[in-house]
Amino acid sequence: MRTYLDCIPCFMTQALRAGKTAGLKEKQIKELLDEVGSMIHTIPMESSPPEAGAVIYQKVREISKVDDPFLNVKKKNIGEALNLYPDLKKQVRQSKDPLLTAIRLAIAGNVIDLGVNRVFNLKKDIEQILTQDFAIFDYNAFCKHLEQAKTIYYLGDNAGESVFDRILIEEMHKPVNFVVRDIPVINDVTREDAIMAGLGKITKIISSGSAAPGIVPPLCNPAFMEQLRKADMIISKGQGNYEGLSKEPLPLFFLLKVKCHVIARDLGVSENSIILKQQKLS
Amino acid sequence: MRTYLDCIPCFMTQALRAGKTAGLKEKQIKELLDEVGSMIHTIPMESSPPEAGAVIYQKVREISKVDDPFLNVKKKNIGEALNLYPDLKKQVRQSKDPLLTAIRLAIAGNVIDLGVNRVFNLKKDIEQILTQDFAIFDYNAFCKHLEQAKTIYYLGDNAGESVFDRILIEEMHKPVNFVVRDIPVINDVTREDAIMAGLGKITKIISSGSAAPGIVPPLCNPAFMEQLRKADMIISKGQGNYEGLSKEPLPLFFLLKVKCHVIARDLGVSENSIILKQQKLS
Repeated sequence: MRTYLDCIPCFMTQALRAGKTAGLKEKQIKELLDEVGSMIHTIPMESSPPEAGAVIYQKVREISKVDDPFLNVKKKNIGEALNLYPDLKKQVRQSKDPLLTAIRLAIAGNVIDLGVNRVFNLKKDIEQILTQDFAIFDYNAFCKHLEQAKTIYYLGDNAGESVFDRILIEEMHKPVNFVVRDIPVINDVTREDAIMAGLGKITKIISSGSAAPGIVPPLCNPAFMEQLRKADMIISKGQGNYEGLSKEPLPLFFLLKVKCHVIARDLGVSENSIILKQQKLS
Repeated sequence: MRTYLDCIPCFMTQALRAGKTAGLKEKQIKELLDEVGSMIHTIPMESSPPEAGAVIYQKVREISKVDDPFLNVKKKNIGEALNLYPDLKKQVRQSKDPLLTAIRLAIAGNVIDLGVNRVFNLKKDIEQILTQDFAIFDYNAFCKHLEQAKTIYYLGDNAGESVFDRILIEEMHKPVNFVVRDIPVINDVTREDAIMAGLGKITKIISSGSAAPGIVPPLCNPAFMEQLRKADMIISKGQGNYEGLSKEPLPLFFLLKVKCHVIARDLGVSENSIILKQQKLS
């Protein structure tokens, strides 16, 4: 997805929120906003938003002098999600269509997103998403692909969300490569977070080689991209990965909750929609 | 009021909204955002937000090459307000306390604000504000001051809102100087707008000498400020004027609806509150 004009004030809002969450002092946050402001003219509108995100969060790391300013937030989110895990597993087992329930839960986990919406109420969101209609629902194609796929990549999004991803991956009953960010960016899932979420035992965790808050092919490790291009099925979680991959001719399934009006417009759905969308390959 | 960190992304949002409302093309809006972004490092946090606003809207004028990019929007707002005028006058006449009803209506008119909140439903807002409790209500002091005041200044805010200001000024039954922006900025009231709203017949319209979207003393004409400092009573409408004057030792009464969380925090009230606040003079 390209960068829209509306993304630009949002970059500033994200920088501000990141600075606050990272515990920076007012003077440091002003410095961060100064720097992000002064780089706006370098952002090409053709680039995808996570490319600017990569630079913004690099600045947060530089100014805070902390490699993972969101570490505590992520740990808390993962802990909370793990507390819910046993009940959610029971809910999946008892449902008529366990795979679909697990997909819904994986989307519900997507509300844990510092980048876009800091305020969330997990239990309430889970309840709502379990009954919400999908705005795009390519579930039959998803099931068909899953049945035949041998090489599956699952592109992680936020750290706490990865506990919910684990529930879906467990329901898929297939070997899965779980893709994480190379180094910490916002509250996105890294190798350490994925292990804490319990994904180390059931998937092969691999890094995209990039610190952008979304899989942006030109920013990823070329060897990783080569692997990804050979995949039979790629499950892409969240907005950041959608933004980076929405134009890529890959066997993608996008799984997300639409949390911003720009992405809603890009997808042709309304905000707060839930999406299971197969990539159109021309 | 000082500039808070939260104001900075809001400057970008305002620039974007201004560019869109002024009918700029995408490339021009990007240029505007680039310029506003690159000047963020020059904004001192001790300055009041309308000082940055003055620069932003100057950029909009420069890039659009139009002196009053919001002319049509303002004309439309004033026309809509004038259509409501006869019914509102009747409502004031029939009320138990016509002055207080007129104050409430003047605040209701304050919802016509492109700078902060573009979406408004005037009739619905009027109805609500006519019964809403004030979060700060220095009405007794207001009446007492009004009774004794000989020199009254009324600081206008938005163009459409000035029709509602007219209703309040008519209820005050005193000679009033109505203060307008020197040149067009956002949808703020200028001399021409005030005349269109019918204020030319009942007030002396004077310019602040400034194009900031709020009365910021150091940016105003010194002769105007000298006059203002001699006033017995100053009625300040809206957020922009509050931001510029909140620390000034003047006989001020602030009349506004709180439309942003930063001002809410500064005033110690919740967002969407309505305010009739006497300036504390130490």
